[in-house]
Formats: sequence, C-alpha cells, structure tokens
Amino acid sequence: MIHVALIGGSGYTGSELLRLLLGHPDVKVTAVTSERFSGTPVSDTFLQFRNTGLTFESLNLQDLTARADLFFLCLPHKTSQKIVADLHKAGKKVIDLSADYRLNSSKIYESWYKTPHLFSALLRKAVYGLPEINRDMIKKAFIIANPGCYPTSAILGLAPVMGRDYVDTDSIIVDSKSGTSGAGRNPAQPFMFCEVNESVRAYGISVHRHTPEIEQELSTLSKNKVRIIFTPHLIPMDRGILSTIYVRLKERMKLSEIQEHFREYYKKEPFVRVLKNGDYPLTKAVKGTNFCDISVFLDNRSGKGYSLIVVSAIDNLIKGASGSAVQNMNIMYGLEETAGLMTSSPTP
Amino acid sequence: MIHVALIGGSGYTGSELLRLLLGHPDVKVTAVTSERFSGTPVSDTFLQFRNTGLTFESLNLQDLTARADLFFLCLPHKTSQKIVADLHKAGKKVIDLSADYRLNSSKIYESWYKTPHLFSALLRKAVYGLPEINRDMIKKAFIIANPGCYPTSAILGLAPVMGRDYVDTDSIIVDSKSGTSGAGRNPAQPFMFCEVNESVRAYGISVHRHTPEIEQELSTLSKNKVRIIFTPHLIPMDRGILSTIYVRLKERMKLSEIQEHFREYYKKEPFVRVLKNGDYPLTKAVKGTNFCDISVFLDNRSGKGYSLIVVSAIDNLIKGASGSAVQNMNIMYGLEETAGLMTSSPTP
Amino acid sequence: MIHVALIGGSGYTGSELLRLLLGHPDVKVTAVTSERFSGTPVSDTFLQFRNTGLTFESLNLQDLTARADLFFLCLPHKTSQKIVADLHKAGKKVIDLSADYRLNSSKIYESWYKTPHLFSALLRKAVYGLPEINRDMIKKAFIIANPGCYPTSAILGLAPVMGRDYVDTDSIIVDSKSGTSGAGRNPAQPFMFCEVNESVRAYGISVHRHTPEIEQELSTLSKNKVRIIFTPHLIPMDRGILSTIYVRLKERMKLSEIQEHFREYYKKEPFVRVLKNGDYPLTKAVKGTNFCDISVFLDNRSGKGYSLIVVSAIDNLIKGASGSAVQNMNIMYGLEETAGLMTSSPTP
Amino acid sequence: MIHVALIGGSGYTGSELLRLLLGHPDVKVTAVTSERFSGTPVSDTFLQFRNTGLTFESLNLQDLTARADLFFLCLPHKTSQKIVADLHKAGKKVIDLSADYRLNSSKIYESWYKTPHLFSALLRKAVYGLPEINRDMIKKAFIIANPGCYPTSAILGLAPVMGRDYVDTDSIIVDSKSGTSGAGRNPAQPFMFCEVNESVRAYGISVHRHTPEIEQELSTLSKNKVRIIFTPHLIPMDRGILSTIYVRLKERMKLSEIQEHFREYYKKEPFVRVLKNGDYPLTKAVKGTNFCDISVFLDNRSGKGYSLIVVSAIDNLIKGASGSAVQNMNIMYGLEETAGLMTSSPTP
Repeated sequence: MIHVALIGGSGYTGSELLRLLLGHPDVKVTAVTSERFSGTPVSDTFLQFRNTGLTFESLNLQDLTARADLFFLCLPHKTSQKIVADLHKAGKKVIDLSADYRLNSSKIYESWYKTPHLFSALLRKAVYGLPEINRDMIKKAFIIANPGCYPTSAILGLAPVMGRDYVDTDSIIVDSKSGTSGAGRNPAQPFMFCEVNESVRAYGISVHRHTPEIEQELSTLSKNKVRIIFTPHLIPMDRGILSTIYVRLKERMKLSEIQEHFREYYKKEPFVRVLKNGDYPLTKAVKGTNFCDISVFLDNRSGKGYSLIVVSAIDNLIKGASGSAVQNMNIMYGLEETAGLMTSSPTP
Repeated sequence: MIHVALIGGSGYTGSELLRLLLGHPDVKVTAVTSERFSGTPVSDTFLQFRNTGLTFESLNLQDLTARADLFFLCLPHKTSQKIVADLHKAGKKVIDLSADYRLNSSKIYESWYKTPHLFSALLRKAVYGLPEINRDMIKKAFIIANPGCYPTSAILGLAPVMGRDYVDTDSIIVDSKSGTSGAGRNPAQPFMFCEVNESVRAYGISVHRHTPEIEQELSTLSKNKVRIIFTPHLIPMDRGILSTIYVRLKERMKLSEIQEHFREYYKKEPFVRVLKNGDYPLTKAVKGTNFCDISVFLDNRSGKGYSLIVVSAIDNLIKGASGSAVQNMNIMYGLEETAGLMTSSPTP
Repeated sequence: MIHVALIGGSGYTGSELLRLLLGHPDVKVTAVTSERFSGTPVSDTFLQFRNTGLTFESLNLQDLTARADLFFLCLPHKTSQKIVADLHKAGKKVIDLSADYRLNSSKIYESWYKTPHLFSALLRKAVYGLPEINRDMIKKAFIIANPGCYPTSAILGLAPVMGRDYVDTDSIIVDSKSGTSGAGRNPAQPFMFCEVNESVRAYGISVHRHTPEIEQELSTLSKNKVRIIFTPHLIPMDRGILSTIYVRLKERMKLSEIQEHFREYYKKEPFVRVLKNGDYPLTKAVKGTNFCDISVFLDNRSGKGYSLIVVSAIDNLIKGASGSAVQNMNIMYGLEETAGLMTSSPTP
Repeated sequence: MIHVALIGGSGYTGSELLRLLLGHPDVKVTAVTSERFSGTPVSDTFLQFRNTGLTFESLNLQDLTARADLFFLCLPHKTSQKIVADLHKAGKKVIDLSADYRLNSSKIYESWYKTPHLFSALLRKAVYGLPEINRDMIKKAFIIANPGCYPTSAILGLAPVMGRDYVDTDSIIVDSKSGTSGAGRNPAQPFMFCEVNESVRAYGISVHRHTPEIEQELSTLSKNKVRIIFTPHLIPMDRGILSTIYVRLKERMKLSEIQEHFREYYKKEPFVRVLKNGDYPLTKAVKGTNFCDISVFLDNRSGKGYSLIVVSAIDNLIKGASGSAVQNMNIMYGLEETAGLMTSSPTP
C-alpha cells in the first residue's frame, strides 16, 4: 500500500484525483488538505466522498511527511515551488500537477509566469511526466512535473512525427478547444453559466502559458528547436479537449503510411487509441477516461503548404491531469500502469 | 412594397428568413412553400408566426410567379438548380440560399457536389452575394448566390489582407467552430441532443463543400490562386460560427498597422465590427444579429512562419444565411442596407 | 419622446431593458447608471450598445431628475426603497424592477426580506405592474412595482380561475423551472458553468421570496386568502421559466370548458397565447419575446383530488422583467401597449 | 462466473448495461444482440468497447440459450413479451428492462400500452425489481421486471411514508425533470440538439405510461389504492431525473421526525443517500452512479393542505435502468449487492 497525501483537494483536479486514488487497489489516502475548507468533511464539498471519513486539513508539512510517502500537489502555479522543494528535501516523492516544475529553464519559466523560480537546481531533477514519451525517466523520478492538459493533447498528437525529416517543425499550429472545467472551481465572471453557455471564444492567443511546455517537449523529441502557434478556445461543455493540429510537410507523403506509423508508435500504449482511417475523435468518447484518441488526416489538395492534420481528444481532468498523475504513480512504483485507470466512458 | 415568396420555409434558415422578412418595413410575404407541410398553417410548425395567417403551400411556379417579384430559395443543394433557372426565365429576381450558384465553374461544382450543373450559362450571371466584397455587382444582379455560413466568416476575416504582398496565400488555414443549427432541422443520429451535447468534434477535413467557395472568392480578391485548409467543428450550442484563421506572413508586420488596415477596410460597413486590440469575438455577442465581429492578432514569437491570426464570429443563421439574404435584397432594391436587420443581440 | 433614465444598468435585466428601450420608437434614454462601471462606455460591458454613445454614470439623483421623466430601477432588493421614495417626492414616475414595492404590507415585506420597509405609506401608492390583471391601475400609477419573474408565470397561469367556485385555493402548487440568468450576473460558485451544466436542482423550498407576492395577487383576484406551495428549480439554460401549476378542483369540470374560459379571459391580451388543446408550452418558443404561453390540462383519473394542471412559459428577462416594464411604461403613457415589444422569437 | 447475454445492445440503456457487466467481477458476457447492427463489432457503435472483441449478433434464441444463463432484455416495450416467455420456458433467468412485465394486471397493461398482453400468467411470476422494496422476492425470482426510470425516483422518494396514517394517498403529485437520454438513441425531431437545448417542456400529462407502475407499487406499499398525478419534463442535459414530490399530510408533523424516519428506513441501503436537513439533491451528484439521493422538506406555512415535499435524484440510465438491473442480478445470484456498481461520480 502506497501512503499518499493530496495537497490541495478542493478543486476539480483535486476531487478527480481523490476519486481515482480512492478506487486504486494499491493506494491509501492518508491526508487531503485545503486551506479554505480545513476542518470540514471532504463530503461537505463533494458528496461522492461521503463514506470515506476524510476531512480537509490545513497544510502542515512536518506532520504530513510522517504520514505519507508520495505527495500529489494540486495547487495553483507559483505556490507549488517551495512545497515541492521541502518535500523533496524530506525524502518524499512528489507528483506536482502545477506548472512549477515543467519547464527546464528557470529563465523561460520567469518570462511566462512573471515570477522567479527559486529552485532552479530542482528543475533539472524534475521529470516531465508524460508516460508515452518519458516512461523510463518517470520510473526513477522523485519529482514528477505532471503535464498541462493542452500540452498532453498536443504532444501526444505530434510525438510520432517529431524528428521525421518530412516535417516542417517551424510552422506547427495547435488549435485547441477545451471544456470549462479547465478554468477551475473558483467563481469568476467569464466562467459563469450564462457567459459560457451558447458561446465559443478564443483566448490567450500567443500568450498562453502552455506554449513553452509544448515547445520544450517537442523540441526534445525532434532534436531541434520547435516553435508552435497555440490557440486555446473555451467551449460550452464541462470536460474535454479537442486539439486540431496542422503540420506542414516538406514532401508529399501517403496518409496510410503516416497512419501506420502512428499505430506502430503507440501500439504498446494502453491509453492512446489511434482511430481508423476517416474516423473522428469525439471528446465525449474519452470523457471520464484516461484515453487519448487520435486520428490522422492529410490535406492533399495543395501542391505545397501544410498538410498533415492530426486531431486528438482527451478528458482534460483525467488524461490531462489526474489520470495522468495516477499513471505516473503506477510507473514510479512498478505497478501495473493501468491500475485504477481502466474506467470506460459512459454513453452518452 | 416588394412582393416576395419564400420557397422552402420549414427549416431553420427558412424560419429565420421569414421572421426577418415579416419584420421588414418594405416587404410583403405573399407565399411560403413546403412540400412536407403543405396545407398546414406555418404557425403549426413555428409558433412565432401565429398571427401571420400564413399557410405552407406546395411549390407551383406558374402560380407563384404571378404573386411575387423576388424569390428566396431555402432548398437543399442540387434541387435549386432548375427552380432558379425557371424563375430567371420568368423574369423574376432570385436569392438562392443553396450552394447551386455559388461556384463560377460547373466543373468545380460537379467535382464537389457529385452532380452535373445543368445551367452553367447561368452560373456566370449569378453574383456571389457577400455585400462587403461584391456590393456593386449585387445592385444589378438578377440571381444572387447567397454565401455559405462558413465562407462568410472566413472571407470577411481575410478580405482586408487579400492581395497584400506580405500575405502568403498558399498556406491559409481556417479552423471553424459551428453551432448545431447549421446541420438543419431534419432528424439524424449525429445531431441528436445526447450526441452533440458535452462533446466537440471535427468533421469533413479537406472534403467540406464550403472549401471551393472560400477559395474562389479569396482568389478573386487576391488576384491569384488561393488554396486553403478548412476544418469545420461541431460545437454544443444552437448558433454561431467562430473561425480562427491562420495566415503566414512573408515579412514582419506591426499588429497595429494591420488592425488599422482592417478598420479602414470595414469603416463604412454597417455589419462588420473590428474589435479593439486584445478583445476576443464571442459568438454570443453576435447571436441573433447580422454582425460579423473580427479581431486581429499577431504571433510575433517565431522568426518566420504563420503569424497573422484573425478571429471572426457570426450568427450562422443570420449573417451566415438569412440576414445576409435580406441585406442582399436591400441592396438589389436600393433600400437602406440595414432595413429590417438592426436587431441587437440579447444578453445573455 | 419620453425621457427615461435607467438606474442600475450593468446586470442582465438592465441590459435587456436598455436594449428594449433603445429600440422603442417613443423613448429617449438620457442616462444609464452603474456604480461599478461608472465612467466607462456601456459598450465595454455589453458590445451590442456599441454605437449608442452611452456611458455608465454614477447615481446622482439631483442631476438625473433634471434629465428624465421616467425612471427604471434595476437595483438589488432593499436598495430601491429610498431611491423610489426620493424620485417620487421629486415628482417623477418610477418603474421599480426590484421587489421593494411589490408587497402591500410592510410587515410581510419585513418577514420575508429581513429588513424593515421605511416607506410603508408609499407601498399603498405603488401598483403591482402585471398589466393583464392591473391595467387600469397602471394607467394612473406613479410607482410601478414590476412583478417578479416567477410570479408573472404563476399569476398569469392562475388568474383566469381565481374566484371560481370550483377551485380549491388552499392547495395550489407551483413547480417552476428557471434558466440561470435569473440568478444575475455577479460571480458566485453555484452559478458557475460547471456547477449548473448537466444538472437540475430545486432550491428555496417554502422560503423563496416570490411566494408572498404570488399569494397576495392571487388572494386579491380570488377575494379570499390563497396559500400556495412554490418550488423553484434551476435548469441548465440561459433563459426561460416554465411553471407547472397544480390546482385541486372541488367538482368535476370539462377540460374544454376551462380552456374556453382561458381563451376568453385572455382574448384581448396581446402577450398571452393560450395554446391549442394538447399542445405544450416550450420556453424556447417564448425566448426573446414578451409572450406568455399557457396550456391547460386536466387530470381526470382520480375521483377527487387535484386535477387542473396549467403549464405556463415566459422569458424570465422579458415578460418576467424588462419586457413587462416596457409594457407598463406603454400603458402609463398611453402608447400602443405593444410598442417596442413585438419581437418574435428566433428558431432555434 | 455468470454467463449473461444482452438482448438489444445498441441503445443507451444497452450500452450502459454492457459497460457495467464488463466491469463486473462475476460476469462473463457471452452475447450481445442487435438486429440493426448485426455482424458489426460493438466498438463500431460504441468506441469504449474497443478491446472486448464483442460483435453484435442477430437474435437467435435457440443458439443463445445454450450460451447464457441470465438474459438482460433492452428491447422496446411490446417486443419483450414473447422473448421473455420463450426464455422462461427454456429455463433461463431474465431481467427485462422493458415495461412488459411490470404491471400485474394485463388489463391495466392493455389500457396503457394499447396492445394485449399474451402471457398474463407470467405477469404473476414476474417480480418488480426495485431492490429497496422487493429484495426478498427478487432473491427467488426468475423473471425480473426492471423498474422504469421515473418510477424508481418516485417510489424511492415515497416508500418510507407509504402506509403511514398521516399521509393522504389520494393526492400525491410527482413532478419529474429528466435528461434527454431517456428518450433513447433513435433519431426523432423533438430530441434533436437544437430542439432540446435551451428549452424546458412538460409532456405526457396524465397519460405517461409510468403512471400505473408507480401507482401499483405505492398501492402495495400503502395497502390501499394510491392515485398520483405525474408530470414528466424534458431538460437540456444528457442524464438524470429529479423528482419533486408533493404529499398532503392529514396532520401536522415535525420535519425532523419524518427525516429521521427516512434515515431509518434506508439505513441499510447501499444506494440510497438521505441528505442532511436543508441540502438539495443535484442530478449531477448522482451522475454515473447507482445512487438515489433524497431530501425531505416540509411546507409549514399553510394550516392544511399538501405539505411534505420530497426531492429525489437518480441517474436515469444507472439507478433508473442498467445499474438497477445489475443490482437485481447481484441479489438473484447471492453476490455482494454492490458488486460492479460502486463507481463514484466525477466532479464536475
């Protein structure tokens, strides 16, 4: 039994993580913290945890380190920095769902997050926890920087062709559509029902903080500097991210060949489903699951120009956050990688 | 008073057109046809027309030509061809909301619609009815091919920069998100509530029939052959299209300069609103109106590659169909161009 | 031209009222106030008012009374009390969309609103502004207490049978389902998209403040004390209230007779539509309009017990608030009662 | 291992049942039938069953009886009659999710379903499969008539007070709000996205077929003839039923006493959660689960008249159909009653 503590359990990511951990055969949740709800039963906030006996507590690191071996952090960006460092110093393993340890470079971190990174030495120890590309490093990691939701959908959609000669890595476009849970549980006017419902909007064009994270991992995969254009959109639904990814090819390719390559690349992956030729991913088909559905298309109309189109779909709170965190734990502890994660999606 | 007949009035486009026409100060609707509902009061299908006294009738051209001067056709593609030709021969003006007369080339029509065009001579007489780019031709037209919904959002987002040297017209990407009313009123499994709700999907990648229409108009505007990649998406909402358009620039440009150019280009247009720098179009803000909201962004991170990003929003049934049809009528008949169209959008 | 000022224009009710007033042929809006947005263009908050030139201003009664004859108040309950009194003293007409002047009794007001009413003398001058039942008083009124949204749907559904011998007025149940805009524009956790979407809930059982207002008007109509059970529900949609009303009958009645009576009762009303036997009101059919759709059913299965079932549908922001306010203005000023209100609803 | 066959697996109920059965530790699914999709992989219709190897087959009873011991029928009403009889004759156990065996009286069946019941002898053998009220009979049953979704929410909300002297069983009102999945997967105009979205409507007033089923079970529980008024409503969401139930009391009761009674009544039930005083059930909180959440309120304002108000919430496809079916199977086979059913609901 792995004794785990969940730091920051009152948001959507925290509650989903708690749900998955409570259903995991090899895990015992020993603590769930929340500053805002400290002292109240977790089930007052989330009815589904009614019979768990869990109560939110205030964060007391000294006390907690005695009670858990693995710590999941669902805290806002910037506040994770020091807590990760303290836990690491105390010899604990950490899976951090914030962005604080995702970027290798403290300089790039500072330029996007507008705050210095005070533990840049630790950045080099942290492993970017996307199992499909970093599984071996995850096995030995002490600090996992759990990927962002958009980056997960983008990187999984692109990984198979990174490093391929026929790909123009300088002009990749990622156009993503996300459900509203990505914005979190705190009240804010733009995410009120009547503002989101019956509307679609783009936001954060060329300034969204998931951009450097995507570029960093794609650059590593392709062994040269990748620059992307990333446009997130807000969609009137609870969950799901659909990323439509446009990749310019340097030479004419056959669709079947690229599809075959995607299938080969992911053939051992338990959570990536490459769809049949012509089938389109639906966010609903991955809702509530740790799957990433991918389909590959080719625009063969123009003589030159962009032409590979990859569509990927994930549940932003599962494969894009809490499910991925559990998958990382499974790998770190040598468990079956799918343990606690094989829920299938309801219809509808 | 213009006497108008509406051919095909039982769909969403038809009902919205009827609503606008009934509220128009210079129009008298003399007939509304529907084969399926022939003989029943229009208000049995659409309660809002309760006090109009209108009854659906079967299409009888001989009878109808005696009762109206202008004909709006809201028929499925392919069935409009002959009716337009017959009405034209009878000396009537026609605004056709189908795709049958939008493409200048019968060959291109046939390759996308998989049916021959039997009136190719008429194709040359038909005017593509997007007022913002073809106003002068619309004034004198007898046959208006009313633009498709996606094309309206794409062309209006791109028109100001077509023909500009700094634009690479060979690699334009139009990523569009549409509400579900675009799929029409007929029952079909993919558009059932439980299939659409809580989901997003792409469809018709590289085969959607609005592609040649967009390319044709952009090519005319830019005076060279434009090829686009067009990806439509289905969104869980009734109405609205948001198009996110990526344009590669050949040289570095200043955002403010391009924004200024957009403002200048559209400054006399009653239905195009270029938003303030940094503001994002929302489909909800144009819902129920004939407006097209446009905002221009620049991705200035990469040294080369795509970098102009235009976001445009319309109501697919108004500016994308019926509102545009009324605007065309106003122009053809020398009326105030905004007559019957100045509804503002409700909040929320 | 009536010169009107709108006090509190930054909420949903305020924006809808402003939209209707700006489209009204006999009205000139001379001021719109908002403490929060004072000094900013109204179009910064609501894009649809882009070309109006209106700017939110701070509330300065002395200044405003010189600029307008009629004042619409879209303020929170409790804050309207004194402003109405001051405007009345200054000789101005007031249409108050808050609840502050709806209850005749300051004692009942205090028991439901938990605050004393400091202008109880004025309560007797205020007229409950539901045109269908109080038209004559509205004509001569100086203070209109504009009805609540739920009460409008409940009272219109019940008015025709109040005072009828066969109705048991002691056991009326009003089960109402409301869209989320009724909760207003201010951010609050329960009205965030992800909390409202894909869920239905009841709230305020037996303590909702619209209860005494419904009972007061029904008691007046039936000339005896009416007590109701009122249960509001929150529905995942922007607008609309559907009230399902259960009325126990003292004797067996024929459905056709009661339907005929409803038709007769409302036959001259421009905004009440009694549907055909068997047809069901849809909130979507009244969306964006000032209509109230009503249908009457009979449960003829039990020998005794409740048996009349009335279903009524309104747009909570129009007939349930701002449209009704404009209708009241039209009556007060002797204008055509439907002026500025004959918008029909879009489909879908 | 129980070998089960699922007859009619291409609808929402069928797919949810299949999902639950595949996740059940003691079940082996040996066949899934669908006439429409016969011969195609189940995963072509429902992606989540991708790795099951299951293929839809045509219904061949002779073949199937050799391959399974327990049969779940997810067929339309009326078509189940004979198949249940044939399976029963072949010595198989059957859980029928249609309405064909729910009513004890073939006469009542015929009057509501407009078709004769050809196996009325079997009606007496069938057990109405609501575990919370009929557990002992279910243990020994060969034919389970699985309850309707509305009846489950209504009966569970009322069972604790049936037979109590203080309850007036002649005037119970059940006002239910249901998500759209209850209407099934087959395309039909009223359930298209644009018809359901942004709207609420009542339907089937006093003629809905779940009425006699509710009355039958309540009558048995209360040992006298119960008549209800039942009004279903269609809500723009995928899943969930909220029933607001009004019960007239013959004497004044204390709320705390009735709440205590509900808690006592359900204290051993694994799937009924009686909420804390003042808490409201949300359909979202039971989504994806087999729970029924119940809260009890009292209207203490009127001297007489209706006054107990019970609100209950279920997931219509789980506790209202497939989850309940699995619960019945668990009871019939002496398994842990919660086996395969302890999924908790995601947030949001």
